[in-house]
Amino acid sequence: MQIGVIGLGLIGSSIARAVKKHTDFKVAGFDIDQPVLNTALEQGVVDSGNAEDACASDVVFVCLFPEAAVEFISSHTFAHIVCDVCGVKGFVSEQLSGRVPGYVGVHPMAGREISGYYAGDADLFLGASLIITADGNTNKEYVQRIKEFAPAIGFERVVVTTPEKHDRIIAYTSQLAHVVSSSYVKSDTAMDYVGFSAGSFSDLTRVARLDPQMWAQLFLENSENLSEEIDTLVGHLLEYKKAIAEGNRQELLLLLSQGRERKDLLDKLKE
Amino acid sequence: MQIGVIGLGLIGSSIARAVKKHTDFKVAGFDIDQPVLNTALEQGVVDSGNAEDACASDVVFVCLFPEAAVEFISSHTFAHIVCDVCGVKGFVSEQLSGRVPGYVGVHPMAGREISGYYAGDADLFLGASLIITADGNTNKEYVQRIKEFAPAIGFERVVVTTPEKHDRIIAYTSQLAHVVSSSYVKSDTAMDYVGFSAGSFSDLTRVARLDPQMWAQLFLENSENLSEEIDTLVGHLLEYKKAIAEGNRQELLLLLSQGRERKDLLDKLKE
Repeated sequence: MQIGVIGLGLIGSSIARAVKKHTDFKVAGFDIDQPVLNTALEQGVVDSGNAEDACASDVVFVCLFPEAAVEFISSHTFAHIVCDVCGVKGFVSEQLSGRVPGYVGVHPMAGREISGYYAGDADLFLGASLIITADGNTNKEYVQRIKEFAPAIGFERVVVTTPEKHDRIIAYTSQLAHVVSSSYVKSDTAMDYVGFSAGSFSDLTRVARLDPQMWAQLFLENSENLSEEIDTLVGHLLEYKKAIAEGNRQELLLLLSQGRERKDLLDKLKE
Repeated sequence: MQIGVIGLGLIGSSIARAVKKHTDFKVAGFDIDQPVLNTALEQGVVDSGNAEDACASDVVFVCLFPEAAVEFISSHTFAHIVCDVCGVKGFVSEQLSGRVPGYVGVHPMAGREISGYYAGDADLFLGASLIITADGNTNKEYVQRIKEFAPAIGFERVVVTTPEKHDRIIAYTSQLAHVVSSSYVKSDTAMDYVGFSAGSFSDLTRVARLDPQMWAQLFLENSENLSEEIDTLVGHLLEYKKAIAEGNRQELLLLLSQGRERKDLLDKLKE
């Protein structure tokens, strides 16, 4: 089996590294950044380095930003299965589903707050979830093949859903987290944080170090869901604000207890 | 030297455990929960278990919720230094500073999302910051003694500040993080998160599992600072919301880039 990887950034190079480390499959890779491609060849992260060869693979992962992924997949021919790995799926599948026969959308639920080839990690997907998006046009056998491939590079869980449901949930679980983190660091008080912070601050601010170009695309291609989630969060924040400003202990206790119960419930759902 | 610990919950038992593990000092502890006190004695986490003995120690840490800490310190006599460890300092020092001769406020910047004696950890303070609050009434030699003691139980950094400055910064670095996390879990979308989440979601929601009684006290005793920080965060969130809802890519890129620059700056400040 040969795995194709187009774009050797964080996700693409991690897929390539994971295939080389955890399987016996070949990797045909490509990147428009020639020095990166040369390094990947030298380091044995990819076995060959041209786009046509990659597109002829059994499964091709196109690891580019959403607009570039659509452009690449639309303008190339694939022998078998081709997947984008974008964090929004509605935008991509609207343009590819039913037009590109081998197209299946996937979204690896793993990442780092740094990007690029050198941030790649063969173990990035260990324990993570792979989301596969499918609609009426999607080849079911292809979905099955990706489901079987996923554990080989470390995925612990595979979820198959629709592009619409993916985008609705991801707006909350991932995109909102990035909006909050990016907003959180902007208080003037942040400049005095050294010596006054612990784990909660570092958790809340970690992903503020995001790639603006990529996340702007993801947010704008899922603007309705994300706008709604921001509004919901702001609504909740203002409930706490009201109880705190009014010194309403009863109400504040209720809000905090409900939050804790919800958190306990979420932890149980995962088991 | 003998260290006194009143209240053997997460912080109190961690101080006791850290003293026993990392120093040769004695620990005189006390807890109104008799089974917990017995266990601490059996496990050698404390060397003796009565309140008078604890209050006669060289340094006494009163590890109770704010209102109970003020009550305990006001109604007992201490041979030398007595510290509360509360997460708000203005409220406590207003009532104790100048009235209790040996009083010095401290705030260990370490915690866990679980509480109680059994959550205690001898290594909880490794690498953490200890904040000492002082005003015109505070005995400078006592501050110096706590500064010298802190590294012995693992603290990496000691910051001396005023109760007012402490409360202003903590509203942002810690309290706001807990309000956000508690609010974050409340979206209905949360019920569908399994298989759709990665590190950012788990970071943003971790501390939603807080102790409502304790945090309600902390929030209400710092309501002005915290209300202001919630408003600031909501203001920033709505800037992102506006850019996203309007499809204003230029503005969204600017907001995300500013967030990233701020995050990079904060990381540099820490070095």
